[in-house]
Amino acid sequence: MADLWQSAMDHAVAIARKAGEVVREALVDERKVMTKSSSVDLVTQTDQKVEQLIIQSVKEKFPTHKFIGEESVAAGESCVLTDSPTWIIDPIDGTTNFVHAFPFIAVSIGFSVKKQMEFGVVYSCLEDKMYTARKGKGAFCNGEPLQVSAQQDIKQSIIATEFGSSRDPETVDNIFRSLRSILCIPVHGVRGAGTAAINMCLVASGSVEAYYEIGIHVWDVAAGSLIVSEAGGVLVDVEGGDVDLMSRRIVAANSRTIAQRIVKEIASFSPSRDDAPPAKQ
Amino acid sequence: MADLWQSAMDHAVAIARKAGEVVREALVDERKVMTKSSSVDLVTQTDQKVEQLIIQSVKEKFPTHKFIGEESVAAGESCVLTDSPTWIIDPIDGTTNFVHAFPFIAVSIGFSVKKQMEFGVVYSCLEDKMYTARKGKGAFCNGEPLQVSAQQDIKQSIIATEFGSSRDPETVDNIFRSLRSILCIPVHGVRGAGTAAINMCLVASGSVEAYYEIGIHVWDVAAGSLIVSEAGGVLVDVEGGDVDLMSRRIVAANSRTIAQRIVKEIASFSPSRDDAPPAKQ
Repeated sequence: MADLWQSAMDHAVAIARKAGEVVREALVDERKVMTKSSSVDLVTQTDQKVEQLIIQSVKEKFPTHKFIGEESVAAGESCVLTDSPTWIIDPIDGTTNFVHAFPFIAVSIGFSVKKQMEFGVVYSCLEDKMYTARKGKGAFCNGEPLQVSAQQDIKQSIIATEFGSSRDPETVDNIFRSLRSILCIPVHGVRGAGTAAINMCLVASGSVEAYYEIGIHVWDVAAGSLIVSEAGGVLVDVEGGDVDLMSRRIVAANSRTIAQRIVKEIASFSPSRDDAPPAKQ
Repeated sequence: MADLWQSAMDHAVAIARKAGEVVREALVDERKVMTKSSSVDLVTQTDQKVEQLIIQSVKEKFPTHKFIGEESVAAGESCVLTDSPTWIIDPIDGTTNFVHAFPFIAVSIGFSVKKQMEFGVVYSCLEDKMYTARKGKGAFCNGEPLQVSAQQDIKQSIIATEFGSSRDPETVDNIFRSLRSILCIPVHGVRGAGTAAINMCLVASGSVEAYYEIGIHVWDVAAGSLIVSEAGGVLVDVEGGDVDLMSRRIVAANSRTIAQRIVKEIASFSPSRDDAPPAKQ
Protein backbone atom coordinates (compact mmCIF):
# COMPACT_ATOMS: atom_id res chain seq x y z
CA MET A 1 0.00 0.00 0.00
CA ALA A 2 2.93 2.32 0.68
CA ASP A 3 3.55 2.75 -3.03
CA LEU A 4 -0.05 3.62 -3.65
CA TRP A 5 0.07 6.44 -1.09
CA GLN A 6 3.32 7.70 -2.59
CA SER A 7 1.67 7.92 -5.98
CA ALA A 8 -1.29 9.69 -4.35
CA MET A 9 1.13 12.14 -2.78
CA ASP A 10 2.90 12.76 -6.08
CA HIS A 11 -0.50 13.46 -7.56
CA ALA A 12 -1.34 15.84 -4.71
CA VAL A 13 1.85 17.84 -5.30
CA ALA A 14 1.18 18.07 -9.03
CA ILE A 15 -2.43 19.10 -8.61
CA ALA A 16 -1.57 21.62 -5.86
CA ARG A 17 0.89 23.26 -8.22
CA LYS A 18 -1.70 23.33 -10.99
CA ALA A 19 -4.27 24.77 -8.56
CA GLY A 20 -1.76 27.43 -7.53
CA GLU A 21 -1.41 28.46 -11.17
CA VAL A 22 -5.17 28.91 -11.40
CA VAL A 23 -5.08 31.04 -8.25
CA ARG A 24 -2.27 33.21 -9.58
CA GLU A 25 -4.03 33.67 -12.91
CA ALA A 26 -7.27 34.59 -11.16
CA LEU A 27 -5.45 37.28 -9.20
CA VAL A 28 -4.59 39.04 -12.43
CA ASP A 29 -8.24 38.93 -13.53
CA GLU A 30 -11.12 40.60 -11.81
CA ARG A 31 -11.84 39.01 -8.46
CA LYS A 32 -15.58 38.65 -8.40
CA VAL A 33 -17.05 37.71 -5.09
CA MET A 34 -20.06 35.42 -5.44
CA THR A 35 -21.59 35.22 -1.99
CA LYS A 36 -20.44 35.98 1.51
CA SER A 37 -21.50 34.56 4.83
CA SER A 38 -20.11 37.65 6.51
CA SER A 39 -18.03 40.57 5.37
CA VAL A 40 -14.97 38.56 6.45
CA ASP A 41 -15.80 35.13 5.09
CA LEU A 42 -15.71 35.42 1.36
CA VAL A 43 -16.24 32.64 -1.08
CA THR A 44 -14.95 33.30 -4.51
CA GLN A 45 -15.53 31.70 -7.85
CA THR A 46 -11.92 30.64 -7.84
CA ASP A 47 -12.36 28.78 -4.56
CA GLN A 48 -15.06 26.58 -6.09
CA LYS A 49 -13.24 26.21 -9.39
CA VAL A 50 -10.03 25.08 -7.71
CA GLU A 51 -11.80 22.57 -5.44
CA GLN A 52 -13.58 21.03 -8.42
CA LEU A 53 -10.31 20.90 -10.34
CA ILE A 54 -8.65 18.99 -7.50
CA ILE A 55 -11.54 16.63 -6.81
CA GLN A 56 -12.15 15.77 -10.48
CA SER A 57 -8.50 15.09 -11.06
CA VAL A 58 -8.21 12.86 -7.98
CA LYS A 59 -11.44 11.00 -8.79
CA GLU A 60 -10.10 10.03 -12.19
CA LYS A 61 -7.03 8.50 -10.63
CA PHE A 62 -8.45 7.21 -7.33
CA PRO A 63 -12.16 6.60 -7.97
CA THR A 64 -12.87 4.98 -4.57
CA HIS A 65 -11.36 7.71 -2.41
CA LYS A 66 -13.49 10.05 -0.35
CA PHE A 67 -13.30 13.82 -0.01
CA ILE A 68 -13.80 16.48 2.59
CA GLY A 69 -13.55 19.86 0.89
CA GLU A 70 -14.36 23.32 2.18
CA GLU A 71 -16.63 24.15 -0.74
CA SER A 72 -18.29 20.71 -0.87
CA VAL A 73 -19.12 20.92 2.83
CA ALA A 74 -20.46 24.45 2.31
CA ALA A 75 -22.66 22.95 -0.43
CA GLY A 76 -24.05 20.35 2.01
CA GLU A 77 -21.72 17.36 1.69
CA SER A 78 -20.83 15.38 4.80
CA CYS A 79 -17.80 16.25 6.89
CA VAL A 80 -17.21 13.00 8.72
CA LEU A 81 -13.81 11.35 8.68
CA THR A 82 -14.01 7.58 8.12
CA ASP A 83 -11.35 4.89 7.81
CA SER A 84 -11.48 5.24 4.02
CA PRO A 85 -8.68 7.00 2.18
CA THR A 86 -9.86 10.61 2.32
CA TRP A 87 -8.60 13.77 0.67
CA ILE A 88 -9.11 16.81 2.91
CA ILE A 89 -8.97 19.91 0.75
CA ASP A 90 -8.91 23.64 1.22
CA PRO A 91 -8.70 25.00 -2.33
CA ILE A 92 -7.74 28.51 -1.16
CA ASP A 93 -6.70 28.90 2.46
CA GLY A 94 -6.61 32.63 3.01
CA THR A 95 -9.66 33.69 1.03
CA THR A 96 -9.52 37.18 2.52
CA ASN A 97 -5.87 37.41 1.51
CA PHE A 98 -6.87 36.24 -1.95
CA VAL A 99 -9.53 38.93 -2.33
CA HIS A 100 -6.89 41.54 -1.46
CA ALA A 101 -3.91 39.88 -3.13
CA PHE A 102 -2.21 39.78 0.28
CA PRO A 103 0.86 37.66 -0.32
CA PHE A 104 -0.03 34.50 1.70
CA ILE A 105 -2.42 32.20 -0.15
CA ALA A 106 -2.29 28.41 0.13
CA VAL A 107 -3.71 25.35 -1.52
CA SER A 108 -3.96 22.73 1.22
CA ILE A 109 -4.35 18.99 0.56
CA GLY A 110 -4.22 16.44 3.36
CA PHE A 111 -4.70 12.72 2.95
CA SER A 112 -5.97 10.47 5.71
CA VAL A 113 -6.27 6.67 5.94
CA LYS A 114 -7.84 5.00 8.98
CA LYS A 115 -8.17 8.52 10.43
CA GLN A 116 -4.38 9.02 10.37
CA MET A 117 -2.73 11.62 8.13
CA GLU A 118 -0.59 9.84 5.54
CA PHE A 119 0.63 12.95 3.73
CA GLY A 120 0.11 16.69 3.65
CA VAL A 121 0.78 19.22 0.90
CA VAL A 122 0.54 22.99 1.36
CA TYR A 123 1.40 25.12 -1.65
CA SER A 124 1.97 28.80 -0.84
CA CYS A 125 1.29 29.86 -4.36
CA LEU A 126 2.38 33.52 -4.38
CA GLU A 127 5.63 32.66 -2.64
CA ASP A 128 5.98 29.53 -4.81
CA LYS A 129 6.77 27.42 -1.75
CA MET A 130 5.70 23.77 -1.85
CA TYR A 131 5.52 22.33 1.67
CA THR A 132 5.19 18.55 1.86
CA ALA A 133 5.25 15.84 4.50
CA ARG A 134 4.71 12.12 4.44
CA LYS A 135 4.13 10.13 7.61
CA GLY A 136 7.45 9.00 9.04
CA LYS A 137 9.47 10.56 6.25
CA GLY A 138 9.93 14.18 7.34
CA ALA A 139 8.71 17.54 6.12
CA PHE A 140 10.11 19.62 3.29
CA CYS A 141 9.81 23.00 1.60
CA ASN A 142 10.73 22.93 -2.08
CA GLY A 143 12.61 19.74 -1.31
CA GLU A 144 14.65 21.18 1.59
CA PRO A 145 14.10 19.46 4.96
CA LEU A 146 12.16 21.46 7.56
CA GLN A 147 12.93 21.58 11.26
CA VAL A 148 10.99 23.41 13.95
CA SER A 149 12.70 26.08 16.05
CA ALA A 150 14.85 24.86 18.96
CA GLN A 151 13.78 27.82 21.11
CA GLN A 152 12.42 26.71 24.50
CA ASP A 153 12.09 30.18 26.06
CA ILE A 154 8.60 31.54 25.49
CA LYS A 155 9.93 35.11 25.91
CA GLN A 156 12.14 34.64 22.87
CA SER A 157 9.31 33.17 20.82
CA ILE A 158 7.04 34.46 18.07
CA ILE A 159 3.49 33.18 18.25
CA ALA A 160 1.17 33.10 15.26
CA THR A 161 -2.59 33.39 15.49
CA GLU A 162 -5.52 35.06 13.74
CA PHE A 163 -8.45 37.25 14.69
CA GLY A 164 -10.76 34.87 12.82
CA SER A 165 -13.86 35.76 10.88
CA SER A 166 -16.39 36.02 13.71
CA ARG A 167 -17.29 39.50 14.91
CA ASP A 168 -19.60 38.15 17.61
CA PRO A 169 -18.64 40.20 20.71
CA GLU A 170 -18.24 37.18 23.02
CA THR A 171 -15.96 35.40 20.54
CA VAL A 172 -13.95 38.57 19.96
CA ASP A 173 -13.65 38.98 23.76
CA ASN A 174 -12.18 35.50 24.06
CA ILE A 175 -9.81 36.01 21.17
CA PHE A 176 -8.54 39.32 22.54
CA ARG A 177 -8.21 37.95 26.08
CA SER A 178 -5.98 35.09 24.87
CA LEU A 179 -4.00 37.35 22.59
CA ARG A 180 -3.29 39.90 25.28
CA SER A 181 -2.30 37.26 27.83
CA ILE A 182 0.12 35.70 25.40
CA LEU A 183 1.57 39.02 24.21
CA CYS A 184 2.19 40.08 27.80
CA ILE A 185 3.92 36.86 28.95
CA PRO A 186 5.77 38.65 27.24
CA VAL A 187 6.56 36.93 23.96
CA HIS A 188 8.91 38.29 21.34
CA GLY A 189 6.11 39.02 18.90
CA VAL A 190 2.74 37.96 17.56
CA ARG A 191 2.18 37.45 13.85
CA GLY A 192 -0.48 36.02 11.56
CA ALA A 193 -0.17 35.17 7.89
CA GLY A 194 -3.94 35.17 7.41
CA THR A 195 -3.99 31.44 6.62
CA ALA A 196 -3.89 28.55 9.07
CA ALA A 197 -2.05 26.33 6.60
CA ILE A 198 0.80 28.81 6.15
CA ASN A 199 0.90 29.61 9.87
CA MET A 200 1.49 25.89 10.45
CA CYS A 201 4.19 25.81 7.78
CA LEU A 202 5.84 28.76 9.56
CA VAL A 203 5.92 26.61 12.72
CA ALA A 204 7.43 23.73 10.72
CA SER A 205 10.01 26.12 9.22
CA GLY A 206 11.03 27.52 12.59
CA SER A 207 9.96 31.10 11.76
CA VAL A 208 7.43 31.04 14.59
CA GLU A 209 7.56 28.86 17.68
CA ALA A 210 3.83 28.21 17.81
CA TYR A 211 0.47 28.82 16.22
CA TYR A 212 -2.90 28.53 17.92
CA GLU A 213 -6.42 29.23 16.83
CA ILE A 214 -10.00 28.41 17.73
CA GLY A 215 -12.49 28.41 14.86
CA ILE A 216 -10.41 26.83 12.12
CA HIS A 217 -11.75 23.87 10.12
CA VAL A 218 -10.29 20.44 9.43
CA TRP A 219 -9.45 21.40 5.84
CA ASP A 220 -7.39 24.37 7.09
CA VAL A 221 -5.12 22.23 9.27
CA ALA A 222 -5.16 18.60 8.07
CA ALA A 223 -2.18 18.92 5.73
CA GLY A 224 -0.36 21.38 8.00
CA SER A 225 -0.69 19.12 11.04
CA LEU A 226 1.45 16.43 9.43
CA ILE A 227 3.94 19.02 8.15
CA VAL A 228 4.36 20.30 11.73
CA SER A 229 4.74 16.87 13.32
CA GLU A 230 7.11 15.61 10.62
CA ALA A 231 9.24 18.76 11.16
CA GLY A 232 9.58 17.75 14.82
CA GLY A 233 6.73 19.79 16.25
CA VAL A 234 3.77 18.87 18.41
CA LEU A 235 0.01 19.33 18.16
CA VAL A 236 -2.26 19.71 21.15
CA ASP A 237 -5.73 20.94 21.87
CA VAL A 238 -6.10 24.50 23.23
CA GLU A 239 -6.83 22.97 26.64
CA GLY A 240 -3.68 20.86 26.49
CA GLY A 241 -5.16 17.44 25.68
CA ASP A 242 -4.86 15.48 22.47
CA VAL A 243 -5.57 17.41 19.32
CA ASP A 244 -8.81 16.58 17.51
CA LEU A 245 -8.79 17.90 13.95
CA MET A 246 -12.60 18.02 13.88
CA SER A 247 -12.82 20.14 17.02
CA ARG A 248 -11.91 23.42 15.31
CA ARG A 249 -9.22 24.09 17.93
CA ILE A 250 -5.48 23.69 17.59
CA VAL A 251 -2.10 24.49 19.04
CA ALA A 252 0.87 23.63 16.82
CA ALA A 253 4.23 24.22 18.43
CA ASN A 254 7.92 23.48 18.19
CA SER A 255 7.80 21.62 21.52
CA ARG A 256 5.55 20.44 24.30
CA THR A 257 7.08 23.09 26.61
CA ILE A 258 6.05 25.99 24.38
CA ALA A 259 2.68 24.41 23.58
CA GLN A 260 1.78 23.94 27.24
CA ARG A 261 2.95 27.46 28.14
CA ILE A 262 0.56 28.91 25.56
CA VAL A 263 -2.29 26.65 26.59
CA LYS A 264 -2.16 28.30 30.05
CA GLU A 265 -3.05 31.67 28.50
CA ILE A 266 -5.76 30.64 26.05
CA ALA A 267 -9.34 31.55 26.93
CA SER A 268 -10.79 28.39 25.47
CA PHE A 269 -14.20 27.97 23.89
CA SER A 270 -15.83 25.35 21.68
CA PRO A 271 -17.25 26.21 18.28
CA SER A 272 -19.65 23.73 16.68
CA ARG A 273 -17.57 20.73 15.54
CA ASP A 274 -16.87 20.15 11.86
CA ASP A 275 -18.42 16.68 12.12
CA ALA A 276 -21.47 17.77 14.10
CA PRO A 277 -24.70 16.44 12.61
CA PRO A 278 -26.62 19.17 10.78
CA ALA A 279 -29.01 21.09 13.05
CA LYS A 280 -32.63 19.88 12.76
CA GLN A 281 -34.99 22.25 11.00
CA MET B 1 19.76 69.51 -8.79
CA ALA B 2 17.23 67.04 -10.16
CA ASP B 3 19.98 64.97 -11.74
CA LEU B 4 21.94 64.87 -8.53
CA TRP B 5 18.98 63.41 -6.63
CA GLN B 6 18.43 60.86 -9.39
CA SER B 7 22.00 59.69 -9.02
CA ALA B 8 21.51 59.58 -5.25
CA MET B 9 18.41 57.47 -5.77
CA ASP B 10 20.24 55.10 -8.12
CA HIS B 11 22.86 54.75 -5.44
CA ALA B 12 20.20 54.06 -2.80
CA VAL B 13 18.71 51.26 -4.90
CA ALA B 14 22.11 49.69 -5.48
CA ILE B 15 23.15 49.88 -1.85
CA ALA B 16 19.75 48.60 -0.62
CA ARG B 17 20.17 45.57 -2.85
CA LYS B 18 23.70 45.03 -1.55
CA ALA B 19 22.44 45.43 2.04
CA GLY B 20 19.71 42.89 1.33
CA GLU B 21 22.35 40.39 0.24
CA VAL B 22 24.19 40.88 3.53
CA VAL B 23 20.90 40.32 5.39
CA ARG B 24 20.14 37.14 3.45
CA GLU B 25 23.66 35.81 4.01
CA ALA B 26 23.44 36.56 7.72
CA LEU B 27 20.22 34.57 7.94
CA VAL B 28 22.07 31.48 6.84
CA ASP B 29 24.73 32.05 9.52
CA GLU B 30 24.19 32.06 13.24
CA ARG B 31 22.13 35.02 14.31
CA LYS B 32 23.91 36.32 17.37
CA VAL B 33 22.01 38.90 19.33
CA MET B 34 24.31 41.52 20.82
CA THR B 35 22.14 43.53 23.18
CA LYS B 36 18.46 44.04 23.70
CA SER B 37 16.51 46.95 25.15
CA SER B 38 13.64 44.56 25.84
CA SER B 39 12.86 41.00 24.88
CA VAL B 40 11.05 42.40 21.86
CA ASP B 41 13.49 45.03 20.65
CA LEU B 42 16.54 43.21 19.46
CA VAL B 43 19.57 44.77 17.91
CA THR B 44 21.71 42.42 15.94
CA GLN B 45 25.21 42.58 14.66
CA THR B 46 23.81 42.59 11.16
CA ASP B 47 21.72 45.69 11.89
CA GLN B 48 24.85 47.65 12.77
CA LYS B 49 26.91 46.15 9.97
CA VAL B 50 24.29 47.00 7.35
CA GLU B 51 23.86 50.57 8.59
CA GLN B 52 27.62 51.15 8.46
CA LEU B 53 27.76 49.63 4.99
CA ILE B 54 25.09 52.04 3.76
CA ILE B 55 26.48 55.14 5.49
CA GLN B 56 30.07 54.53 4.41
CA SER B 57 29.07 53.94 0.85
CA VAL B 58 26.91 57.08 0.73
CA LYS B 59 29.59 59.21 2.43
CA GLU B 60 32.10 58.31 -0.26
CA LYS B 61 29.78 59.50 -2.95
CA PHE B 62 27.97 62.36 -1.17
CA PRO B 63 30.39 63.58 1.52
CA THR B 64 28.28 66.59 2.60
CA HIS B 65 25.03 64.70 3.15
CA LYS B 66 23.62 64.06 6.60
CA PHE B 67 22.25 60.85 8.11
CA ILE B 68 19.58 59.73 10.48
CA GLY B 69 20.02 56.02 11.08
CA GLU B 70 18.39 53.74 13.61
CA GLU B 71 21.67 52.40 14.90
CA SER B 72 23.48 55.76 14.87
CA VAL B 73 20.67 57.34 16.90
CA ALA B 74 20.77 54.37 19.30
CA ALA B 75 24.50 55.12 19.66
CA GLY B 76 23.78 58.76 20.58
CA GLU B 77 23.75 60.64 17.25
CA SER B 78 21.24 63.43 16.73
CA CYS B 79 17.85 62.75 15.21
CA VAL B 80 16.87 66.20 14.00
CA LEU B 81 15.78 66.74 10.43
CA THR B 82 17.35 69.84 8.88
CA ASP B 83 17.09 71.38 5.42
CA SER B 84 20.27 69.55 4.40
CA PRO B 85 20.08 66.53 2.12
CA THR B 86 19.55 63.74 4.65
CA TRP B 87 19.52 59.96 4.32
CA ILE B 88 17.07 58.37 6.73
CA ILE B 89 18.02 54.74 7.17
CA ASP B 90 16.60 51.65 8.78
CA PRO B 91 19.15 48.96 8.00
CA ILE B 92 16.79 46.12 8.99
CA ASP B 93 13.15 47.02 9.47
CA GLY B 94 11.65 43.99 11.11
CA THR B 95 14.46 43.02 13.49
CA THR B 96 12.21 40.56 15.29
CA ASN B 97 11.31 39.00 11.95
CA PHE B 98 15.02 38.84 11.16
CA VAL B 99 15.86 37.04 14.40
CA HIS B 100 13.22 34.44 13.52
CA ALA B 101 13.68 34.42 9.74
CA PHE B 102 10.05 35.47 9.41
CA PRO B 103 9.70 36.28 5.74
CA PHE B 104 9.24 40.09 5.86
CA ILE B 105 12.51 41.96 6.33
CA ALA B 106 13.21 45.35 4.76
CA VAL B 107 16.07 47.71 4.15
CA SER B 108 14.55 51.20 4.22
CA ILE B 109 16.29 54.27 2.81
CA GLY B 110 14.53 57.61 2.59
CA PHE B 111 16.09 60.84 1.34
CA SER B 112 14.94 64.26 2.42
CA VAL B 113 15.88 67.74 1.20
CA LYS B 114 14.47 70.86 2.86
CA LYS B 115 12.45 68.48 5.07
CA GLN B 116 10.63 67.03 2.04
CA MET B 117 11.07 63.41 0.97
CA GLU B 118 12.77 63.35 -2.44
CA PHE B 119 12.90 59.58 -2.83
CA GLY B 120 12.22 56.42 -0.90
CA VAL B 121 13.58 52.91 -1.34
CA VAL B 122 12.29 49.86 0.55
CA TYR B 123 13.89 46.54 -0.31
CA SER B 124 11.97 43.52 0.97
CA CYS B 125 14.98 41.31 0.81
CA LEU B 126 13.54 37.83 1.38
CA GLU B 127 10.78 38.45 -1.16
CA ASP B 128 13.28 40.19 -3.46
CA LYS B 129 10.88 43.11 -3.98
CA MET B 130 12.43 46.52 -4.58
CA TYR B 131 9.92 49.28 -3.85
CA THR B 132 10.91 52.74 -5.05
CA ALA B 133 9.37 56.18 -5.30
CA ARG B 134 10.64 59.54 -6.40
CA LYS B 135 8.76 62.74 -5.65
CA GLY B 136 6.32 63.49 -8.45
CA LYS B 137 7.33 60.44 -10.47
CA GLY B 138 5.24 57.61 -9.03
CA ALA B 139 5.94 54.49 -7.02
CA PHE B 140 7.14 51.13 -8.30
CA CYS B 141 7.82 47.56 -7.24
CA ASN B 142 10.54 45.86 -9.27
CA GLY B 143 9.85 48.49 -11.92
CA GLU B 144 6.07 47.88 -12.10
CA PRO B 145 3.94 50.92 -11.20
CA LEU B 146 2.10 50.75 -7.88
CA GLN B 147 -1.42 51.97 -7.24
CA VAL B 148 -3.29 51.99 -3.93
CA SER B 149 -6.58 50.07 -3.61
CA ALA B 150 -9.71 51.79 -4.95
CA GLN B 151 -11.81 50.35 -2.10
CA GLN B 152 -13.77 53.08 -0.27
CA ASP B 153 -15.85 50.77 1.93
CA ILE B 154 -14.11 50.23 5.26
CA LYS B 155 -16.04 46.96 5.73
CA GLN B 156 -14.36 45.53 2.64
CA SER B 157 -10.92 46.72 3.77
CA ILE B 158 -7.89 45.04 5.31
CA ILE B 159 -6.08 47.16 7.86
CA ALA B 160 -2.44 46.60 8.80
CA THR B 161 -0.99 47.43 12.18
CA GLU B 162 1.41 46.01 14.77
CA PHE B 163 1.37 45.24 18.48
CA GLY B 164 4.65 47.16 18.84
CA SER B 165 7.50 46.38 21.18
CA SER B 166 6.18 47.99 24.37
CA ARG B 167 4.66 45.66 26.97
CA ASP B 168 3.78 48.58 29.26
CA PRO B 169 0.19 47.81 30.34
CA GLU B 170 -1.17 51.30 29.52
CA THR B 171 0.36 51.23 26.04
CA VAL B 172 -0.91 47.69 25.45
CA ASP B 173 -4.38 48.84 26.63
CA ASN B 174 -4.39 51.62 24.05
CA ILE B 175 -3.16 49.35 21.27
CA PHE B 176 -5.79 46.71 22.02
CA ARG B 177 -8.58 49.27 22.35
CA SER B 178 -7.82 50.68 18.89
CA LEU B 179 -7.41 47.25 17.37
CA ARG B 180 -10.67 45.95 18.71
CA SER B 181 -12.60 49.06 17.63
CA ILE B 182 -11.24 48.78 14.12
CA LEU B 183 -11.78 45.01 13.87
CA CYS B 184 -15.38 45.40 14.97
CA ILE B 185 -16.30 48.23 12.58
CA PRO B 186 -16.18 45.48 11.16
CA VAL B 187 -13.33 45.43 8.69
CA HIS B 188 -12.52 42.57 6.38
CA GLY B 189 -9.37 41.65 8.24
CA VAL B 190 -6.39 42.89 10.22
CA ARG B 191 -2.86 41.96 9.25
CA GLY B 192 0.67 42.95 10.16
CA ALA B 193 3.87 42.11 8.33
CA GLY B 194 6.02 42.88 11.35
CA THR B 195 7.70 45.82 9.61
CA ALA B 196 6.35 49.34 9.16
CA ALA B 197 8.17 49.78 5.87
CA ILE B 198 6.59 46.69 4.31
CA ASN B 199 3.18 47.49 5.80
CA MET B 200 3.39 50.83 3.97
CA CYS B 201 4.42 49.09 0.74
CA LEU B 202 1.38 46.83 1.14
CA VAL B 203 -0.76 49.99 1.25
CA ALA B 204 0.99 51.27 -1.86
CA SER B 205 0.45 47.91 -3.59
CA GLY B 206 -3.27 47.82 -2.75
CA SER B 207 -3.00 44.62 -0.65
CA VAL B 208 -4.21 46.49 2.42
CA GLU B 209 -6.31 49.63 2.46
CA ALA B 210 -4.54 51.24 5.39
CA TYR B 211 -1.81 50.91 7.96
CA TYR B 212 -1.62 52.75 11.26
CA GLU B 213 0.74 52.60 14.18
CA ILE B 214 1.84 54.60 17.19
CA GLY B 215 5.41 54.07 18.34
CA ILE B 216 7.22 53.78 15.01
CA HIS B 217 10.30 55.88 14.27
CA VAL B 218 11.12 58.22 11.42
CA TRP B 219 13.51 55.67 9.89
CA ASP B 220 10.73 53.06 9.77
CA VAL B 221 8.40 55.24 7.70
CA ALA B 222 10.40 57.94 5.85
CA ALA B 223 10.90 55.92 2.65
CA GLY B 224 7.51 54.24 2.88
CA SER B 225 5.68 57.54 3.26
CA LEU B 226 6.77 58.68 -0.20
CA ILE B 227 6.02 55.24 -1.68
CA VAL B 228 2.46 55.49 -0.32
CA SER B 229 1.84 59.04 -1.50
CA GLU B 230 3.37 58.42 -4.94
CA ALA B 231 1.09 55.36 -5.29
CA GLY B 232 -1.90 57.66 -4.78
CA GLY B 233 -2.33 57.19 -1.03
CA VAL B 234 -2.56 59.66 1.82
CA LEU B 235 -0.74 60.11 5.12
CA VAL B 236 -2.31 61.61 8.19
CA ASP B 237 -1.67 61.75 11.89
CA VAL B 238 -3.58 59.28 14.10
CA GLU B 239 -5.73 62.22 15.24
CA GLY B 240 -6.51 63.18 11.66
CA GLY B 241 -4.24 66.21 11.25
CA ASP B 242 -1.12 66.54 9.11
CA VAL B 243 1.36 63.73 9.47
CA ASP B 244 4.61 64.55 11.26
CA LEU B 245 7.26 61.92 10.60
CA MET B 246 9.06 62.78 13.87
CA SER B 247 5.92 62.28 15.97
CA ARG B 248 6.09 58.47 15.96
CA ARG B 249 2.45 58.28 14.83
CA ILE B 250 1.14 57.51 11.36
CA VAL B 251 -1.88 56.53 9.31
CA ALA B 252 -1.12 55.60 5.70
CA ALA B 253 -4.21 54.87 3.62
CA ASN B 254 -5.49 54.46 0.11
CA SER B 255 -7.78 57.49 0.56
CA ARG B 256 -8.79 60.26 2.91
CA THR B 257 -12.15 58.48 3.46
CA ILE B 258 -10.56 55.31 4.79
CA ALA B 259 -7.90 57.24 6.73
CA GLN B 260 -10.46 59.38 8.52
CA ARG B 261 -12.69 56.38 9.27
CA ILE B 262 -9.79 54.66 11.03
CA VAL B 263 -8.77 57.80 12.87
CA LYS B 264 -12.18 57.76 14.60
CA GLU B 265 -11.34 54.41 16.21
CA ILE B 266 -7.76 54.99 17.27
CA ALA B 267 -7.09 55.48 20.99
CA SER B 268 -4.36 58.04 20.43
CA PHE B 269 -1.34 58.62 22.63
CA SER B 270 1.98 60.42 22.20
CA PRO B 271 5.30 58.62 22.62
CA SER B 272 8.40 60.76 23.11
CA ARG B 273 9.21 62.38 19.74
CA ASP B 274 12.16 61.16 17.69
CA ASP B 275 13.58 64.71 17.65
CA ALA B 276 13.00 65.36 21.37
CA PRO B 277 16.11 66.73 23.09
CA PRO B 278 17.79 64.10 25.24
CA ALA B 279 16.42 64.00 28.80
CA LYS B 280 18.61 65.92 31.29
CA GLN B 281 20.58 63.80 33.74
